[in-house]
Amino acid sequence: MAEKLLPQIFKFVDQNAESYKNLLKEAVAIPSVSSDAKYRDECIRMVHWTEQKLKDVGASTQLRDVGFQTLDGKEVKLPPVLVGVLGKDPKKNTICIYGHLDVQPALKSDGWNTEPFELVEKDGKLFGRGSTDDKGPVLGWFHAINAYKGVGEELPVNLKFVFECMEESGSEGLDDLLMKELKPEGFFEDVDFVCISDNYWLGTTKPCITYGLRGISYYFLEVECAKMDLHSGVYGGTVHEAMTDLIYLMSQLVDKNGKILIPGIYNSVAPLTENEKNLYTTIDFDPEAYRNSIGAYKLAHEGVKEQLLMHRWRYPSLSLHGIEGAAFQPGAKTVVPGKVIGKFSIRLVPNQEPEEIEQLVFDYVNKKWAEHGSPNKMNITAQSGRAWTENPDHPHYQAAARATKLIYQTDPDMSREGGSIPVTITLQEASGRNVLLLPMGAGDDMAHSQNEKLNVRNYIEGVRLLFYLSLTRCCSWIR
Amino acid sequence: MAEKLLPQIFKFVDQNAESYKNLLKEAVAIPSVSSDAKYRDECIRMVHWTEQKLKDVGASTQLRDVGFQTLDGKEVKLPPVLVGVLGKDPKKNTICIYGHLDVQPALKSDGWNTEPFELVEKDGKLFGRGSTDDKGPVLGWFHAINAYKGVGEELPVNLKFVFECMEESGSEGLDDLLMKELKPEGFFEDVDFVCISDNYWLGTTKPCITYGLRGISYYFLEVECAKMDLHSGVYGGTVHEAMTDLIYLMSQLVDKNGKILIPGIYNSVAPLTENEKNLYTTIDFDPEAYRNSIGAYKLAHEGVKEQLLMHRWRYPSLSLHGIEGAAFQPGAKTVVPGKVIGKFSIRLVPNQEPEEIEQLVFDYVNKKWAEHGSPNKMNITAQSGRAWTENPDHPHYQAAARATKLIYQTDPDMSREGGSIPVTITLQEASGRNVLLLPMGAGDDMAHSQNEKLNVRNYIEGVRLLFYLSLTRCCSWIR
Ligand SMILES: [Zn+2]
Ligand SMILES: [Zn+2]
Ligand SMILES: [Zn+2]
Ligand SMILES: [Zn+2]
Repeated sequence: MAEKLLPQIFKFVDQNAESYKNLLKEAVAIPSVSSDAKYRDECIRMVHWTEQKLKDVGASTQLRDVGFQTLDGKEVKLPPVLVGVLGKDPKKNTICIYGHLDVQPALKSDGWNTEPFELVEKDGKLFGRGSTDDKGPVLGWFHAINAYKGVGEELPVNLKFVFECMEESGSEGLDDLLMKELKPEGFFEDVDFVCISDNYWLGTTKPCITYGLRGISYYFLEVECAKMDLHSGVYGGTVHEAMTDLIYLMSQLVDKNGKILIPGIYNSVAPLTENEKNLYTTIDFDPEAYRNSIGAYKLAHEGVKEQLLMHRWRYPSLSLHGIEGAAFQPGAKTVVPGKVIGKFSIRLVPNQEPEEIEQLVFDYVNKKWAEHGSPNKMNITAQSGRAWTENPDHPHYQAAARATKLIYQTDPDMSREGGSIPVTITLQEASGRNVLLLPMGAGDDMAHSQNEKLNVRNYIEGVRLLFYLSLTRCCSWIR
Repeated sequence: MAEKLLPQIFKFVDQNAESYKNLLKEAVAIPSVSSDAKYRDECIRMVHWTEQKLKDVGASTQLRDVGFQTLDGKEVKLPPVLVGVLGKDPKKNTICIYGHLDVQPALKSDGWNTEPFELVEKDGKLFGRGSTDDKGPVLGWFHAINAYKGVGEELPVNLKFVFECMEESGSEGLDDLLMKELKPEGFFEDVDFVCISDNYWLGTTKPCITYGLRGISYYFLEVECAKMDLHSGVYGGTVHEAMTDLIYLMSQLVDKNGKILIPGIYNSVAPLTENEKNLYTTIDFDPEAYRNSIGAYKLAHEGVKEQLLMHRWRYPSLSLHGIEGAAFQPGAKTVVPGKVIGKFSIRLVPNQEPEEIEQLVFDYVNKKWAEHGSPNKMNITAQSGRAWTENPDHPHYQAAARATKLIYQTDPDMSREGGSIPVTITLQEASGRNVLLLPMGAGDDMAHSQNEKLNVRNYIEGVRLLFYLSLTRCCSWIR
């Protein structure tokens, strides 16, 4: 039985913990910031570095060219996508693994306590940009493969890898590669299931497995009153100002309690079943700790746990993000902006179709605009991706849950997330198989923020957790 | 009589036009951008360069230290203020001249057709940052002084100079220097009147003299919901978002036609007299050209000339400028800002006291906030400066009007401006004398914008116009 391997695997992982940290240190030292053209060479270097690691574990690799993007008004070459294959045994299941090699921008002056691109261990935490999102989890796979080799055990599954370096910047080029190249080439034909490790525990102590993500419908609401910015002293009082119109429209979208004011927006939301309702009561989630961690004065929904979780995961929410084209700097700028673009988004949930939601929003905004009666020009556009959920009772999830219990001595929470990882849906569509989100990091890892970290415990136990592969070994029924 | 000098002065100015352009070219080549710490040395260089020019015309000079400012979180030394004295003849009137040596930022990539810090002549226009605001007008004084010398005529007045290099950044340090140092030292005791050349004609063909400016009351409306920015996927639906509250408050301030919704705000506005009303009908102002120049779809007040001028000059206006702390970049940022600062301002007009207006705004915003009932934290602060008007029938204005008629063969429009130049009021208070705004540039000079220019005609005729000094020579009654 697979479980017999466990003590050996544990021992091997313990013996190699320092080398795992050192490899992560190497990876973090490459500032693969995908949103900034001046780090593009570092992104490419990061892909090459990872390709070598993939080769080191015995995989065959390909660097797939995905063309160009427009960045800061210039045509910039996209980093290649790293595709790998390890094992082709027809008697084994094949798992497709996705991860990303790029990171969010980071400067020490943003408020980091340490150099962001230098991995620093302190109090059991590994601080550094990309430590938890997503370099640590990616390296976890290499460590796990080596651990099987280290204890003299054959890898229980075939693996396929898709590692990109543009995730933090909209995964440009990836969808086309997956759907228009890899799928027609048959890359997904023998894939049995998909595993993505690019999210976090709900809290800081209890592991979880994630079976749902909200989608997103993002809106660009543009109002133009003049072909240039104007001086408020000279022009104030003589023009119909675009900002006045935009602020009016933005004020009509959501109320102070987060209720969305667009008629019909809640109609298609999947009904809450009694069964689902009960799920929320058992989940380990402390509203007061959550409130404290962000310094909020008061949480929505009176801070009731089940309501908070439902509004994070299974109900839509609307957020106003900001305004492009208006004054944003500190100080007392006196501009009357000529053209402003309000940004807001709705997190979509199961059964909300993006096309339906976009139409409701467009109709409502157009109606409010007509009522408002401004002579200015208004235009609204959207970009959307639907929500994703899997069945957490699927054998693939059961294998991951069993491994979690073996490693952490507790059943994982079956959780969803409020955010969106568009590649999840693409991989589900490309493979037609069960997709599992298996988080490595903790809920307080501060991905995308200052002082991003990965707990040493999460890193090491996360490697052990990948032993779930063994539990799927003989499950041909897992399909 | 003074007018007899005119043909000689005209001839001398014509003969020296090329050298005037060359000197302006030198001045524009110094990128004295006051808002950016990395150009601070250039600001200091600009002050020293100008000091030398002042010495060259025979003035005694002082560089006055005005201390430090906080810029981008650092303590940065302010450029010194250049103070000069030319002539102390007790039989002559003494004019105090103010101008500024700093400029707005400018990059070719902002949309300039030429290098912004290289003066380029094209089609009778001198393109370059600072050409019209305010380096051209400042140099005009030196050319005029030299012209008197050139035709062998004694300077008809004593001159005092105050040239600063922080005007585009709030004139930091200047008020204290004027009120707490120069005034107690007696600098203003023998001043008979003050002349400022730092504004523009109303249009592009007819000269004007400016006797009024609106004040400004600038508001910082802060709402905080969390101690950090949050991810809208993870937190959307569980927090009372600061942006929702701020957009609500900002939507309550002004209607689509520009009517300010704050009760009592119009109460103290100086009543419109029949006499004043008639003034607006004769002013040369073409609403359709104005509309076209900014590409507006429709002007406010149905585009009626008199209404437009009144709402630029003698009625308050409220503009929403933008939001600090929210998303402002292109693209689809999904941030839920933790703290946002809405920026808006009200242009103040005669009889509106800043303290009174601030109180009305604070009371209204606090009332709306209480009605709104959000658990978040709200705070509002203000910075204000009152409106300024002079009596355009004052002999000082009559002298300038007579000079304008002699140079341009037309009576100038007596105009106001919608913008604010705070130093105007400080100089009025410090000297207790009549202050005149004598614009050199045209209404389409694009100060603060791309492709700022000064027409060669405005530059050269503007130098001739300073011959108005001779018309004030024997007017001891001008006090
Ligand atoms: Zn990630
Ligand atoms: Zn990320
Ligand atoms: Zn100026
Ligand atoms: Zn200016």
